[in-house]
Amino acid sequence: MAFSSTSSLPVMKQTKPDAERTLLNAVEDRYGGVKVDVEDSMDCNDYVSLLRDSITQWRKQGKKGVWIKLPIHLANLVEPTVKEGFRYHHAESDYLMLVYWIPETPDTLPANASHTVGIGAFVVNDNREVLVVQEKNGAFKGKDVWKFPTGVANQGEDICKAAIREVKEETDIDTEFVEILAFSQTHQTFYGKSDLFFVCMLRPLSSDINKQDSEIEAAQWMPIEEYVAQPFNQKHESFKNIANICLRKSRRNYTGFSAVPMASSSGKKSYSYFNKLQLENETTN
Amino acid sequence: MAFSSTSSLPVMKQTKPDAERTLLNAVEDRYGGVKVDVEDSMDCNDYVSLLRDSITQWRKQGKKGVWIKLPIHLANLVEPTVKEGFRYHHAESDYLMLVYWIPETPDTLPANASHTVGIGAFVVNDNREVLVVQEKNGAFKGKDVWKFPTGVANQGEDICKAAIREVKEETDIDTEFVEILAFSQTHQTFYGKSDLFFVCMLRPLSSDINKQDSEIEAAQWMPIEEYVAQPFNQKHESFKNIANICLRKSRRNYTGFSAVPMASSSGKKSYSYFNKLQLENETTN
Repeated sequence: MAFSSTSSLPVMKQTKPDAERTLLNAVEDRYGGVKVDVEDSMDCNDYVSLLRDSITQWRKQGKKGVWIKLPIHLANLVEPTVKEGFRYHHAESDYLMLVYWIPETPDTLPANASHTVGIGAFVVNDNREVLVVQEKNGAFKGKDVWKFPTGVANQGEDICKAAIREVKEETDIDTEFVEILAFSQTHQTFYGKSDLFFVCMLRPLSSDINKQDSEIEAAQWMPIEEYVAQPFNQKHESFKNIANICLRKSRRNYTGFSAVPMASSSGKKSYSYFNKLQLENETTN
Repeated sequence: MAFSSTSSLPVMKQTKPDAERTLLNAVEDRYGGVKVDVEDSMDCNDYVSLLRDSITQWRKQGKKGVWIKLPIHLANLVEPTVKEGFRYHHAESDYLMLVYWIPETPDTLPANASHTVGIGAFVVNDNREVLVVQEKNGAFKGKDVWKFPTGVANQGEDICKAAIREVKEETDIDTEFVEILAFSQTHQTFYGKSDLFFVCMLRPLSSDINKQDSEIEAAQWMPIEEYVAQPFNQKHESFKNIANICLRKSRRNYTGFSAVPMASSSGKKSYSYFNKLQLENETTN
């Protein structure tokens, strides 16, 4: 056994049949697999020996998927792990997750995340004026187009909260969430990934604009008819559709999906989005 | 210059100021950055020399983000790339994407994909019977719970098409898409990622069930009232809400979001989802 006693990799002694063997310290997952979270640096040869012995053991135990999480400072262990038959599963800034499927049966490993989530904020006040911006960068740069504040939801951020945050960041306007009016799903937006873009209606709670300098060229309140009449809103099918929906919504002639906090069966709190107005109105339709 | 002439890495001779220098072959992106797609194996030291010279050059040219895509068979180049200051951006089964931000200004690199997309299929026939299954695995295994067919959208797959595919796979029933009735966003579902789960209503185009053996224990048509009355649909807030929405929908008392194919400003075809019924009905409130 090549395991070096000076390594600080978490290991465990097996007390069962293969006593005396030192294996990678693994946690069982809910799907009959094991997860290894390598944290400390170690000699590459020692790691390979440990990994091989561990896989032999897990195979005997009938384990299925083997997950190995390597922090970026252990990039030296990526190549040896791949050489043992692992493939990449996903990566974040500071780690790479590799995976190996032990059984002969087809792999049922969960898929990698496939979508980014974007929001567009339709903020309209009681005078039917809409909050619009001109961006310093991006597709509409220098094109004299006034558009909704838009942005990308942060990892772990609720759609309804991302919309409020983006409006605040770009214009300093406080808002409350009203409804998701529409959304679209676009593929191949970024290295094979897809994007879900949600058009959110928000009610302003303040009126004084203080634009963000780094991204926003200009910001203002604009009569909604003027916003809708802009050439780009008439030229492109998808923009025209959204503008039309917003116009109707400003006339109270459209119902989107409300955001309702709700407990899932696992007890986790999350937002559900649906036509709450109609659900609560027994006489509708 | 340590570049080996036997390497088959795509390189280019610079003819401008730094003539005689061989650099990594890069393509400019739309955001002032460069992308390098390393394809063929090469000596690690040669690679590092090339990378250093290239970054020196890109810095002079005012480039911002540097993207390096390493296929899994070049896992030996991961560690040297990290040592040059790169971080991970994302990974798929067969490659790892690393990124380096040259300027002093804060990095504006796009985020990694953050969400998986799941679907649940509410398939109801003219007799108000709903298509339900019992799964061989998962949270409801052996619990005598009849549930909707569910699944995960494949990379690049439209939500409305994923629902049709999952129903076909699990039960062999042909369907057409009607509406998205509701959706929910749950965080921390898998290694910090989030999930968007869409409840889709589908109309059956066939009636003879032929269940998939690997995942499905049993499948049947069940009167909707019987489906809704199941204890788990009454016990959990989110299930109860969905059951209630489906019940109302089966009585034609609920409007969700239709799927409408639409061209974006870039000309890409994608589905938009919104309350089309109300949008088309000028007299609806």
